[in-house]
Formats: sequence, C-alpha cells, structure tokens
Amino acid sequence: MTKHDNSGRYRETGLKLLSRHSISVGDSIKITTEDGEITGLLMPRYESASEEYIVIKLKSGYNTGIHVGKIKSITKLLDKDEAAVSVKTPAITANQNLPKVALISTGGTIASKIDYRTGGVHAAFSADELYASVPELANYASIDPEVLMSEYSENLRPEHWTLIAEKVAEKIKTDKYRGIVVSHGTDTMHYTAAALSFALQNLPVPVVLVGAQRSSDRPSSDAALNLLGATIFATRSEYAGIFVAMHAGTSDDTISCNIGTRVRKNHTSRRDAFESIDRTPIAFVRNNEIEMQQKDQNGLVEIFSDKPFEVKTRFENKVMLLKYYPGFDPTLIEHAINVGYMGIVLEGTGLGHVGKECFPALKKAVDAGLMVCMTSQCIWGRIRMTVYDTGRDLLDIGVIPLSDMISETATVKAMWALANSEDVEAAKKIMQENLANEISDIIPISL
Amino acid sequence: MTKHDNSGRYRETGLKLLSRHSISVGDSIKITTEDGEITGLLMPRYESASEEYIVIKLKSGYNTGIHVGKIKSITKLLDKDEAAVSVKTPAITANQNLPKVALISTGGTIASKIDYRTGGVHAAFSADELYASVPELANYASIDPEVLMSEYSENLRPEHWTLIAEKVAEKIKTDKYRGIVVSHGTDTMHYTAAALSFALQNLPVPVVLVGAQRSSDRPSSDAALNLLGATIFATRSEYAGIFVAMHAGTSDDTISCNIGTRVRKNHTSRRDAFESIDRTPIAFVRNNEIEMQQKDQNGLVEIFSDKPFEVKTRFENKVMLLKYYPGFDPTLIEHAINVGYMGIVLEGTGLGHVGKECFPALKKAVDAGLMVCMTSQCIWGRIRMTVYDTGRDLLDIGVIPLSDMISETATVKAMWALANSEDVEAAKKIMQENLANEISDIIPISL
Repeated sequence: MTKHDNSGRYRETGLKLLSRHSISVGDSIKITTEDGEITGLLMPRYESASEEYIVIKLKSGYNTGIHVGKIKSITKLLDKDEAAVSVKTPAITANQNLPKVALISTGGTIASKIDYRTGGVHAAFSADELYASVPELANYASIDPEVLMSEYSENLRPEHWTLIAEKVAEKIKTDKYRGIVVSHGTDTMHYTAAALSFALQNLPVPVVLVGAQRSSDRPSSDAALNLLGATIFATRSEYAGIFVAMHAGTSDDTISCNIGTRVRKNHTSRRDAFESIDRTPIAFVRNNEIEMQQKDQNGLVEIFSDKPFEVKTRFENKVMLLKYYPGFDPTLIEHAINVGYMGIVLEGTGLGHVGKECFPALKKAVDAGLMVCMTSQCIWGRIRMTVYDTGRDLLDIGVIPLSDMISETATVKAMWALANSEDVEAAKKIMQENLANEISDIIPISL
Repeated sequence: MTKHDNSGRYRETGLKLLSRHSISVGDSIKITTEDGEITGLLMPRYESASEEYIVIKLKSGYNTGIHVGKIKSITKLLDKDEAAVSVKTPAITANQNLPKVALISTGGTIASKIDYRTGGVHAAFSADELYASVPELANYASIDPEVLMSEYSENLRPEHWTLIAEKVAEKIKTDKYRGIVVSHGTDTMHYTAAALSFALQNLPVPVVLVGAQRSSDRPSSDAALNLLGATIFATRSEYAGIFVAMHAGTSDDTISCNIGTRVRKNHTSRRDAFESIDRTPIAFVRNNEIEMQQKDQNGLVEIFSDKPFEVKTRFENKVMLLKYYPGFDPTLIEHAINVGYMGIVLEGTGLGHVGKECFPALKKAVDAGLMVCMTSQCIWGRIRMTVYDTGRDLLDIGVIPLSDMISETATVKAMWALANSEDVEAAKKIMQENLANEISDIIPISL
C-alpha cells in the first residue's frame, strides 16, 4: 500500500531517536513515558501520520502512537528476528455454537496488513489471523473467511460485482450462515452495495459490506471496530438485505448500518465517511449492542422471508454516468451513441435539469434507443421535473426521472436493469420501480 | 415557470370551494378560520404544493396558505379587475443616505413572479417592485436594480459568467456602491460564484449571489429573507470577496454567507440547500443583524484592500468534468483529446483515484498537452494521492492533485486558468495556488 524504506518511514527527531538506540522496525522495544511503560513491536510510521510519533504494536494486537517528546527512555528488548518468534500468539478459536458468519474478502484497506518485518503488504487472511487481530470477534461469531480477490476497490468493475454476488449467493445457498460479511475497499463500496442489492433479491440473511478508512496498522485504524460491528449486525439483524457497516461518528464506539442502495462515501478520509442519504441508518451497533431502527419501515424484507431468493448477477457495462456542469459538451452524449451505449444516467442540477443546449443530443439518444435517466448532483433530496420548463422539456424528450435515487445507485441499477430485461422499455419500467429501497414515492413538497 | 389553467391549478376540495363562491385567481377575498380573519388576493396554487391549501397574497406582499379544512367562511370582496387597482400600494422609497447597493438580476426563481391575473411569469424588476415585495429592504440600502439577463441558471454557460463578471466590474468601477448583490437561479449559482471569484480579484466591496429555492409567490418562499440577508451582508460585511447568501437552516430567521469557492447546492429543494464545504460560513445574518465569523482567518481580502482590483473575465470552454464510476469508459478521455479539449477535471473516488484501466488514456491526454486534474466525488475532505499505489501512479502520469478543492470549483478554475495563462504549464501552476480560498495547504492527518 505504501512505499517505504528501511527506516520504516521515520524521519527527523523520530529517526534520530531510533538510530541512536540501534532500533529498527520489527524490534521488540520498551518505552517509558511519564504515564508509565509500554512494551511492543516497533511498526513503520504511517506515511500520512505526523513525524513526531513512534508507532508500536501492543500484545493486544492494537497499535499505539507515542509522541517523541514524551519519551523518557527507549530500550531494545529483542531483535526483530527473535521478536518475530515471540509474537506468535496462541491461536484463538471461536465457540462452534456461536452463529456462523461467512467473511468474503475482496481487498482494500481492511484486509491489508503491513508486514512489520518487511514493510510489505500482504493480504493473507485466515480465521486465526482474524481472531488474533480482533480477539473480540471470537465472542460473537464463528467465522469462515475466504479471500475472493485482492483489489483496491477503485479497480473493481461490473464484472467484479458479478463475481462477488455469485460468491455471496454460493455461501447463502449452503444454509450454514446467519449472515455474510464482505470486506471491501471503501472507494467504491457503495457502488458494490447497490450492485448486490439488485443482483441478490429476497435475501434470507443480512449481507454486510465493511471496509476501513485507515489500515489496521495505524493507531487510529477503524478496521477492528468496523469488522466487529459488521459481524455483530450480521448475527443479530432483524432484517435481511444488503447493508454497509462503518463508523457512525468520530467517537470509537458506534457503527452505523446503512441500506445498501442509500449510502454514499461523503468524506475522503474521516472514519465516519459513509452516510445514509435521505434516510437514517437501519441500525447502530453501539458498544457491541445492536440498536435496530425503523422497524417495519422502508419496506425492508424481513429476515427468513418466504419469497424465493433471487440471483441475477449480470450487469451491462454500456451505461454512462455523466455529470452536468455549465459548459457541458453535448458531444459526450453523441459519443455514447456512437460507441454503442445502451444507457446514460445524467447527474443534473437542482430538481433534475441540464442546459437546453443538450436537448438535441438527448433526443438523438432516446431516438437511437438509449435509456436516458435523470438524477441530481445535489445528492440530497428528490428530483421533480414537472416544476420548471426545463424539466418538462426533458420529460417530453423521454428522459426518465428517478425521484430520490442517488446517482451512483442509479448508474448501477441501469447496468443491472439493461442486463436483466427483455428490452429497453422493460428496463425503463424497472428503473422507476422500487426494488431495494433505492427509490421512494414522490411526496409532495409541503406548503 | 409553471404551466397553469384558469382554475389557478386548484383541484378537488379547493376548486369546489372556490367554484361554489364564484371566486377566481386575482379576486380579493376574505377567509374566516377559527384563528381569525384574513384578507388578500387569491393566488394560483403552487404546482407541487398540497391540494388542500388555498393561497392568498396578504397586503404585506407575503403569501400564506390556508388549509381548506380550517376555512369557516370565504367571501369575495372585489373582483380581480377592481382588486388589481386596489393593490397598487404607494411607492416605497429608500433613504438616499443609506448605503448604496447595485442589484444585478440574472434570472431564476428569485426574480420570477407569477402574475396573479394571468398566471404568467414576468421578470420585471424595478426598485419600486422590489421595495413593494420586500418592504424591509428600504430600511437597509438604497438599491439600484438592473436586469442583466433572464435565464434559468441551468442554461448559463461560461460566456454568461463573463457577462456577469463584466457587469459587476462595471458597477464596482463607478465607486458608488458599498456592495453588489447578484440574483441568480440556484441550480448553478455555486459555479457562477466560483467563476466570479477567479474573474474578479482583490475586490474592494462584497459581491453577494443570492437565489430562492421557492418562488416568491409560494407561502414558503425564501426569496424575501434571502434577498434581505444578502443586502444586509453587502452593506455591512467586513470582508470583500464573492459570497453566496442563502437560508442557513429550516428556521426562517438566519442567512448564511458562504465563501464563493467553497459552497455547494447539496439539496434539491430545501431552503437551506447551500452548504459551505470543509469550512464554516464567513457570516450569518440573524434577525437582520450580521454576525461575522472567522475574522482574520481564511486569508480573506479585507474590505478596501489596497491591492489593485483585477478583472480577468475570460473562460476556456474546452474543459471537461468527468466523474469516475466502476465501469467508467476510458474512451471518454480519448473523446476529449479527439475534439480538442485543453483540460479534464476528474472527480475520482476516495483520496483521488480512478481505476487502472484509465491510466493509458490519461497518459495519452497528458502527452497530448491536456491539463488533467484530480478532485474527489466524496465532496468533503481533501484528496491525498501519495497514500496508495493508485494515487502515486496517477501522479507519475502527470495528473495534478487539487487537495480540498471541490470539483465544481475546480472545473470553473480550470476554465479560467487555461484562458488566462500563457501555456498549459502556467495553468497547472495556477491550479495548485490558492487564489480565492478554493484550496488550502495539506494538513497531515493526525494520529
């Protein structure tokens, strides 16, 4: 994940202190501060962290950062090779009577682990390693982990959604699991959550996507709490469906569980980056207790639904998401027609508008048989294309209004609808129906 | 703005009640409820409002909605033609000793007025009409209004920004005004605010954009309070610069004044749709009193700056904003090269990523001399392209990282930088410099 050198990326005062004591990354060390004594393994400094901190991995598996200015003494206890032997903690095993959870790893920050010896990254990921890094997991579930792929989520494409959906369906069909957890890079986790929401319908169990904004080797990592929260939700949720479980706020005790079609990564780096849009989360896991919200609301499928589980994992790649802006070039729409696209999702302004200079190209697209849908770049709120002339003109052209569907979900749904319909007209109909809480009825704006 | 028929869009119970009393839109009527008696002119029902309400314009110029179920009696006082005569209120004039404010109208909801007689829309907009509809304005400023254009803001293009910037500069150069207010459709108001922020630098006075989410003929209209708040800010702000003044929350007493490059329309319909991103607003106007925030922060230009006022109003249209999504088609980037674009602003995922399948096309774009910049679709937070391989690979290709610049502002700035630089290399340099609070230094993520 991060480039490094032999200094473990320590610099300036931190590097000087370590060099003076001939300490290098992986060594077992003891640090004395005015608050007491800490023993652990020296970890590489995280690239974006302050240079003033020394990071050590504690016996508990957690990392902690100690400010250089607070260090009274630092001593090497064991060289890194000896330390590597001593760190092999006895294996923790979960009680087999606990609910069973399948954990499917797809890559991303949560699955990555910086090797304290080489500084390299490895995604090895056994049940033993999981329990060793998050020991509380063994109290809540018996986990069957499987590495499906190891990709940064920005590299995932619709064909990966198909693979993930098929793997989740395979696990569900064994009838062994109370829930499924999918670990995933955060960059596009909400797109994958939407994809699974359409590909897997009438789920008999909860499927929970989880990631980490900061890798598990950083003192401020959210990986452990997110994974624990996702697992607790997977074993106790009263609803089946696709969810995203991530930090709910800046405090380190609450996980929010969001509906898979209504969640968005709204911050580049904060641990509570994921937010439900125009909804509240369906549950919180606070201090390891689940708090279900909105019981009987939102039309969520009850767990153990008697409708048959449906698996439709194909996605049509020829769908283009285009965000409108002043000066937007209508030749982008013509390009979509020319290269054989089947659908366009517009991220318009306000209530669902694009400038009138786009009208001829949009008409051409609709006439050429493309499905053209409208969402809003505002993110929150619903579009209403009957309020102003612009919206009505677009409706007349044949643009499909998508109410309060967020644009990322709309793009994914368009890919799914076009791949799983007899023709474009049928896909247009699907786009306007609610399948997985992605769209809600139009509620008139009150006076 | 809205289609209508002779019934003033009343339907069902509302229409029945009005028909029974032979009352039509424009008539002067008296309504009795258990709360008392209300007299005013019957207005057309707003299209998206509930059918259960009757809307009347009060003498104060404000509209109010009355639930049909609460009406005890309804009487016609004057037929609409007689009423039209009686409504001509005596002209209000402002004290010429008050601070002078130029009000430039560009169109949009705030400037639109549904004619109560024809139901048609007209944008006529004299000082008299302004004072008549928002009488409090006359207490704070002597306003010189001018209609520059009358466009829905989704139809504005970079050439309109040039016209608006030139008009603002012309007003400023008269040295007559304590501040400038620009009324604008809300759909792209934040893009125009960014455009003016680059086109007009070292401003000697505040320039305040203002709009309305709901037109002035709706009972819940925010037009009057927004315009009043913008005007008060324009006459009292301690800072010069470009700002956006809109409702700060759901209560009807506070306006937030946001920095022009750091504001975004984040809701399709709420009155408090505009939010400052990664900053707090620079001021609030609460109950008509100004509360300046962040004094001496953010590097804002002090009012009456002694730096010379700079006017550079050209924008290069050949800049494309592309939002990344799983399945994104790299031929979009090739299309930009093929049709002679000079710049691409990517709205990447997370810390500033796009899938690796885009790398060859991006390299081709950079090699072809295009300026390619990176922002994040997360909206909040800053990109950091040195954390993961993907980011570093993109930096190696020559993609310019834009830190915490929001993508809309980045697109506008790229258009401006390319139009006002000797060459692409100079434009790239400008993109990474802070000109108008659009970008801030990289602050290391704390431990």
